[in-house]
Amino acid sequence: MTRRYLDDFAAGDRLAIPGEYEMTPQRVHDFATEYDPQPIHLDPTAATGEFFGRLVASGWHGLSATARLMVEGRPLGDTPLIGVSIDGLRFVAPVLPGDTLRVEAEVLDARPSTSKPDRGFMGIRVVTLNQHGEPVLTQDWTLLLPRRPAAP
Amino acid sequence: MTRRYLDDFAAGDRLAIPGEYEMTPQRVHDFATEYDPQPIHLDPTAATGEFFGRLVASGWHGLSATARLMVEGRPLGDTPLIGVSIDGLRFVAPVLPGDTLRVEAEVLDARPSTSKPDRGFMGIRVVTLNQHGEPVLTQDWTLLLPRRPAAP
Repeated sequence: MTRRYLDDFAAGDRLAIPGEYEMTPQRVHDFATEYDPQPIHLDPTAATGEFFGRLVASGWHGLSATARLMVEGRPLGDTPLIGVSIDGLRFVAPVLPGDTLRVEAEVLDARPSTSKPDRGFMGIRVVTLNQHGEPVLTQDWTLLLPRRPAAP
Repeated sequence: MTRRYLDDFAAGDRLAIPGEYEMTPQRVHDFATEYDPQPIHLDPTAATGEFFGRLVASGWHGLSATARLMVEGRPLGDTPLIGVSIDGLRFVAPVLPGDTLRVEAEVLDARPSTSKPDRGFMGIRVVTLNQHGEPVLTQDWTLLLPRRPAAP
């Protein structure tokens, strides 16, 4: 695997993110215990009386699973995924224990930095889908990428 | 603890979020192993050659820690924290192993739903700070809240 640079991408490019993430009941429990300890994620009985009417995974768990799929997909090769900002993040539908998640990602733009010639910013739309093909999370990431070094 | 409703909040209210989160090296390693397995979070030697020049915590870990502090702070009492969307999320500065995080939160607006009279939306600005008082993450959440039921 080699490094990829801002110059390697253009608006409209689809990034291949082949993996899947099993949102097992155990993982739902473990993540929520550590990072989102609410009855709607941890207590099946109490959850029936709340908004979703059943146990649902933490939205932060869905986001973290999305990060894992993106990292494992290595769309930038050996170049690290460094996030600058996220806009338009929508929790479109609840993620349920037992769901299987996958990710689709498309380049929105690739802009050289106006102040630092060695780097730039790439916008990507990241959509997380469940096993029914239904979007559960959508978000627009801005990543920091190096520009391709000039030939010596 | 009792339930709080959309009607209990107004723009400018500061939410009391008293807790702290210790970003220990072990937690940095464990989170990154599971959700963001990149050398910049896991390999101190490799990380020195990358953008930050040292090991840094996953941004998703900082976000998940922020979620935990917000949940534990119980700003809505027994009413669950249900996120609809996040806008303007900025990774302002890296979170370093050994940092201690805390959160400040302020109500931006509280809007009744135009279609469903039993609920509404509350915007809050959530700022995560390190032990030096420096912001590391900023984000604007939109939460779904019930409206106060009419007296019988």
